[in-house]
Amino acid sequence: MERRKFIGIGGGVVAGVALGAAGSSFGSGLATGGRLSAMAASHGLSGDEATAALQTAVPPGKYDPYYMFASGGHLGAVQVIGVPSMRLLKVIPVFGRDSFSGYGFGSDMGDGVLLGGSDPAKNAPLGWGDSHHPALSETAGQYDGRWLYINDRANGRIAMIDLADYKTRQIIDIPNTGSSHGMVVTPNSEYAQVSALTPRPTTADGYAPLESYADLYRGCSSWYHISPQTGRLVPEKSFQIELPPYSQDLADMGKLASYGFGFINSFNTELAVGGDLQKKPAPEVGATKNNFDYLHVIDWKQAEKVVAAGKYMMRNGMRVVPLSVAASEGILHLIPEPRNPHGVDVTPDGHYIVIAGKLDPHVTIFSIEKIKDAIAGKHYQGKDRYGVPIIPMDAALVTQVEVGAGPLHTQFDGKGNAYTSLFIDSAITKWTLGPKSGVTDKPFSFVKKVPVHYNIGHLAIPGGDTVKPDGKFMVALNKWSLDEVQKLGPSHPVNLELLDINSSSPKLLSSTPLGNSEPHYAQIINTDKLSPLKIYAAGTDPATMTKSQYAVTAGQERIERSGNVVDVYATLMRSHFTPDQIPATVGDTVRIHLTNIEATENATHTFSVPEYNIQATLDPGEALNVEFTVDRVGSFAFYCAQFCSALHMEMYGWLLVAPKGA
Amino acid sequence: MERRKFIGIGGGVVAGVALGAAGSSFGSGLATGGRLSAMAASHGLSGDEATAALQTAVPPGKYDPYYMFASGGHLGAVQVIGVPSMRLLKVIPVFGRDSFSGYGFGSDMGDGVLLGGSDPAKNAPLGWGDSHHPALSETAGQYDGRWLYINDRANGRIAMIDLADYKTRQIIDIPNTGSSHGMVVTPNSEYAQVSALTPRPTTADGYAPLESYADLYRGCSSWYHISPQTGRLVPEKSFQIELPPYSQDLADMGKLASYGFGFINSFNTELAVGGDLQKKPAPEVGATKNNFDYLHVIDWKQAEKVVAAGKYMMRNGMRVVPLSVAASEGILHLIPEPRNPHGVDVTPDGHYIVIAGKLDPHVTIFSIEKIKDAIAGKHYQGKDRYGVPIIPMDAALVTQVEVGAGPLHTQFDGKGNAYTSLFIDSAITKWTLGPKSGVTDKPFSFVKKVPVHYNIGHLAIPGGDTVKPDGKFMVALNKWSLDEVQKLGPSHPVNLELLDINSSSPKLLSSTPLGNSEPHYAQIINTDKLSPLKIYAAGTDPATMTKSQYAVTAGQERIERSGNVVDVYATLMRSHFTPDQIPATVGDTVRIHLTNIEATENATHTFSVPEYNIQATLDPGEALNVEFTVDRVGSFAFYCAQFCSALHMEMYGWLLVAPKGA
Repeated sequence: MERRKFIGIGGGVVAGVALGAAGSSFGSGLATGGRLSAMAASHGLSGDEATAALQTAVPPGKYDPYYMFASGGHLGAVQVIGVPSMRLLKVIPVFGRDSFSGYGFGSDMGDGVLLGGSDPAKNAPLGWGDSHHPALSETAGQYDGRWLYINDRANGRIAMIDLADYKTRQIIDIPNTGSSHGMVVTPNSEYAQVSALTPRPTTADGYAPLESYADLYRGCSSWYHISPQTGRLVPEKSFQIELPPYSQDLADMGKLASYGFGFINSFNTELAVGGDLQKKPAPEVGATKNNFDYLHVIDWKQAEKVVAAGKYMMRNGMRVVPLSVAASEGILHLIPEPRNPHGVDVTPDGHYIVIAGKLDPHVTIFSIEKIKDAIAGKHYQGKDRYGVPIIPMDAALVTQVEVGAGPLHTQFDGKGNAYTSLFIDSAITKWTLGPKSGVTDKPFSFVKKVPVHYNIGHLAIPGGDTVKPDGKFMVALNKWSLDEVQKLGPSHPVNLELLDINSSSPKLLSSTPLGNSEPHYAQIINTDKLSPLKIYAAGTDPATMTKSQYAVTAGQERIERSGNVVDVYATLMRSHFTPDQIPATVGDTVRIHLTNIEATENATHTFSVPEYNIQATLDPGEALNVEFTVDRVGSFAFYCAQFCSALHMEMYGWLLVAPKGA
Repeated sequence: MERRKFIGIGGGVVAGVALGAAGSSFGSGLATGGRLSAMAASHGLSGDEATAALQTAVPPGKYDPYYMFASGGHLGAVQVIGVPSMRLLKVIPVFGRDSFSGYGFGSDMGDGVLLGGSDPAKNAPLGWGDSHHPALSETAGQYDGRWLYINDRANGRIAMIDLADYKTRQIIDIPNTGSSHGMVVTPNSEYAQVSALTPRPTTADGYAPLESYADLYRGCSSWYHISPQTGRLVPEKSFQIELPPYSQDLADMGKLASYGFGFINSFNTELAVGGDLQKKPAPEVGATKNNFDYLHVIDWKQAEKVVAAGKYMMRNGMRVVPLSVAASEGILHLIPEPRNPHGVDVTPDGHYIVIAGKLDPHVTIFSIEKIKDAIAGKHYQGKDRYGVPIIPMDAALVTQVEVGAGPLHTQFDGKGNAYTSLFIDSAITKWTLGPKSGVTDKPFSFVKKVPVHYNIGHLAIPGGDTVKPDGKFMVALNKWSLDEVQKLGPSHPVNLELLDINSSSPKLLSSTPLGNSEPHYAQIINTDKLSPLKIYAAGTDPATMTKSQYAVTAGQERIERSGNVVDVYATLMRSHFTPDQIPATVGDTVRIHLTNIEATENATHTFSVPEYNIQATLDPGEALNVEFTVDRVGSFAFYCAQFCSALHMEMYGWLLVAPKGA
C-alpha cells in the first residue's frame, strides 16, 4: 500500500512551477490547475485555504505519517489522532470504563486493570479519571513506540499502555499523592515521574485541618521504575521524594547535557488555602501574591544512590526520601521562577530549561551548566522554610525572552527554534534558542507571533519532547472553540489547530473541533516507530500476552457444571457463538471463557448480555473470561454487537436463567 | 461569520473554465492553479484526490453545512459529525456514563436520566447500551431539528435527546421488550416506534424454556407518544402491538401516500433457537432456511382506534394490543419478502416500500397502493400460525431490481434515484425509482455500482429518510477499515466514507476511520434547521429547562448544616469556587447545589472531587445538584477539570472530611 510522502514545499510556490512532477494521474499542468482552482473558487476557498486543504489531505488508501497520542482530559482516555488529517483513529480507555472497547464491562482484562493498583479500596468506586500528560517511552532520548504512560490528575494515579495492542495494561494509584499533574519519562525509560499537584496531609488518615497546611501537608515526586522487558511499572523498585507543600505543576526531564536531572515547576509557595466564604482570598488570589515561585531541580541519579543507601522511610508501602534528606543530600534544589508558571521544557540538546511564566510575559531560560556550577559551588541565597537550598535566579538564568501574554508551554522544532503557547493572547510565539543549541545569529530572539483560535493550552510538535524533534507540523490544543463551530448548544468542543512550521513563518492549515474530550497534552510520533500486533496469537490473554489457560479451540467448546458454578468454554466466529445456548438457574455463578478463534485481521466480536451489564470485546485470537452471578430470571439473547458479517444480526444465542425449581 | 456555500460543480470541470469567480484572495487563475497543482504534486495527490480535498475542506472559521447524527453503537452515545469535513464535533452520552460531559458521575441530571424509566431495577446496574437507530423529530415529513430519539439494541430501551442543548432528557426501558432494533419516528412526530429484535417470553418472570419458543415468546412493536410541546415520550399515551415471535428487524414509516402505515422487516420466521453444542443449527443456519420471511405492515391509525376502543390488555404497565386483536382488527398484515432482509425504506413520496434482501441480490419493491388494494379486497394467501393474514407477495410487488451481493439498506436522493448498500460486495448500487416517484425513463433500473471500502452497513444522505432528501452527499458507514489505517493494533476503527452524489456517478471524496465507536446508523440534517441555545438562562436546571429551585447567585453562596446534612450553595466563575472550603465529618450527607454563574458562551466549568467519583459539568447558566455521603476521611482538593482560564490550575478548593470527633 502506498504511503504518503511529505515533501513539504511550503506555501511559497508561485505560478509557472514545473508541473511535470505531478504524475500520470494528472493531465496537463494547466488543465489540472484549472480544475483545482475552479473547484476552490466554486467552494469559496481562498488560495491559502485551498493550498492548506491539499497539504493536509490524506486520501482513501493513504496514511497519516504521524500519530498524535493525546490525553482525553476528564474523559480519562488516551486517543490517537492522525496528523495531518486530524482524524480520530482510536480511543484507548484508561481511567474510565468504555463499552465500545469492552473495557470495564465484565471481562477480566479491563476490570482487572481498573481495579488494580496498590489501593483497590480507592480504585473500586472510580469510574473516571482525568488523563493529563501522556509520555511515550524513550530510548536514547527518542520515542521508541513501545509503551505509553499517563497520569490521572484527579485521583493521583498512573497507567501504562502497551503499544503492542494499544491496551491499558496497568493502573497504579500512587500512595501519598492525592492528585497529580506533571508526568514525564526519563530518556531511557528508566522511570516514569509523576509530581503531585495539590499537597496531601502526611497523617495516617490523609486528613488534616487547613490550619496545619504548612506543617502537615506535603508535596510528592514519584519515580516509578519501568521494567525494560515489559514496560510495566514496578512499585518495589520505585521511590518517592517528599516535597514542600507547594503545588508542583508540570515537569520535564533533563536529557543529554542535563541527563540525570528532573525539573518541576510549582505555584502556591504562598501556601494559600482559600476561605472565600470568610472573605479570605480564593486560591486564584492567595496563590498569586508572590512575585516568584520555585522551580524544583531534582538530581534523580543522586536520589537513586540515597535510596540504595537506605536513607528512606516506608510510607503506605512506598520508599519515601524525606524532605529533609532530599534537601541535605543534594537531591533537591529550588530556583526562583516568575510566579505561577505552567510549563517547564528542556531543549532537545538538554542545555536550556525554559519556564513559561503564565503571569509573566516572558519565558525564563535557565542553563544546566549554570545550575550545576551553582550546586557545585553551593551558591545559595539561603533555604526555604523546609530547609531546601535555593539557588539565586540570577545564578541559573541565561536570559528572558518576551513572548506575550499568558505563556504556558514550549515546544522545539529541532532547528534551533522554540514555540511558546500564549493562553491570554491566543497566539504562539516563535523565538530562537541560544548558542548551546547552535543558534549564534540572533540568539534568544523573538521571531514572530502567530494567532491561533481562542485560548491555546499546550502545543505539540512531532518528537517535540525528544532529543530530535521533527519540526514539520505543530498542533495547537485550543480550549475554546467559540466561532469555530455553531449550533451545538451550550457545550462547546475544544479545538485542535494544525500549523505548518516547515517554513519560516508558521502557517495555519486546519481547525478540528473535537467533541468527545478535552485533550490536555499530546505527544506526536512518526508512525515508522510503531510496530504493533495485527492479530493476537491464538488464545492470547491480553493481560499477560501469553496463551490463556482458558483458551478454547474449535470443537472443544463445552459447558461444565459443578454445584452452582457453570463453566462455559465458548468460541466466537463469524457468525455464531458456540455454545449458543447457556442454561442456568438463578443464583448460579456463570464463568464464560471466551476465545475469538478468528485469524482474520479486523474480525472483532463482542459478547454482549442484555440487562447484565456485560460487554466484552474480543479481537482476533483474543481470550477473555467473564464471570457473573445470574441474579435475574429470564431469557436473555446475548449477541455480538460488532457489525462483523452479513449475518451479524443472526450472531446471537440464549442465556436462559430459570427460576429455582423450574 | 461567513458560511460555506456548496455550489457543487462536481468533478467534470475542465481546463479553461472562467476563473474570475474565484474571488479577490486569488491572484490570476493561472497563478492559483499553478500553486495548487504544485502542492498537489508535491503531496502525491492525483487530480481526483486533490479535487476531493478541496471539495471537502472546511477551513478555520467556516462551517459544515450539514450535521450527521450518528449512533455510537456499543459506545451507547449519539455523535454529531460535520459534513463534509467529517470532524467529530460532539458526543452526546445516552445509555452510558461519560465523564467528559459529566453524565452519570454524581450530578442529579445525568444520574436521574440514567436511572429513570419504568424499571429502575433494570436500569440501575446498566453502564452501557447499544445505541442503534437515531431518528430526528419530523414535521410534515421533514426533520425539524427539535429532538432526537434513539433505541438501545442491547437492553430494549429508548431515549430522547433535546436538541435545544444536546442533552439526553429521558430514558425509558421498554416493557415486554428484551432488545430492540428498528426505531423510527412518524412524519409529524406523533410516535417513536421501536420494534423488538429477539422475542421475549410473555411469562411474568420473563423466562421460558426454548422448547416453548413458538408458544410463549412474542415480538413487540412499541408506539411511544411524543409530547408535541416538550418532545418527551409519554408512556401513558403510548401502546404496544404484540407480534409473532419472529425477529423484527429494521422499520420505516409510511409518509405522504403511505402515511398511517409502518413497515417492519423480520427474519427467523423459522423460529430457530440454536443449540449448536447439541449439533442443532446455530441461528445463522436455522434462521436462514426459509426462502421468505415476512414484512410486517402496521396500520397505526387503525391501532390508535382499536386502543381508543379499549381493545387492549395491560402488561407490565403498558397498553398492549394482543396479537389476535392486531390480526383480527386489520392492524397487522404480513407480506412474504426474500429471506433475512435488513433494511426497509419508504421512498420520499411514500409510494414504494424498498426491501433490501441481504441474502438475495435484489431489492424488492412493494407498492402502498397495491398493499391497500389487497387489504381492502382481503386478497390473502392465508394466515400464519398466529392468525395474521398474509398478503401474497405478488399482490404487493411492483418489481425487483438486481443490485448485487448483500443488500442492506437504501437511501434516496430526492431526484428519483435510490442507493442501496451492499455489505458483501462492499459497494453501493445506484438505481432508479419508478413512475410514481417521477421516473418514467428507465424506471427501476440499475444505474451504476460504485465500490466502497470494506463492508458497508448503512448509508446516509441528508434528509434521506424524509419527504425531501437533499442529495448532495452520501456517507457510507463501513464496518471494516482494513488497509485504510495501519499500526493501530488488533482493534480497528470503523470507516466512514463520504461520496459526492451530486453528479451522475457517485464519487468518493474522503475516508474517515473513526476510533471511538461503531456508528450503526445516522441521519443527516441541514444545520439551517437547528437552533439550539447558546447559553442557559441564569440558574437553569437542564432536567426541566426551568430555573432551579437551588440556583445560587453571586453573593448568596452559603453553607447550611442540619444534623448530618450539609447543604452547600455554591457558584462557579472564572477562576474560583465559592465556597472554596467545604468542611464535613465522615458520615455526613453533603448536598452541593452548584450554579455556573458565567454568562459567557463556552465558559464551562466542572466540579470534580478526587476519590469520590464525582464529575459534574456545568455550562454557562446551568444549575446542578450533587449529593453524596462522605465516607472517606481525608483532605480532597476538588477542582475544575475544564481548562477554563489562564488561572485554571488555581481553580480548586478543599473538601475536608474530618474523622468523627476531630
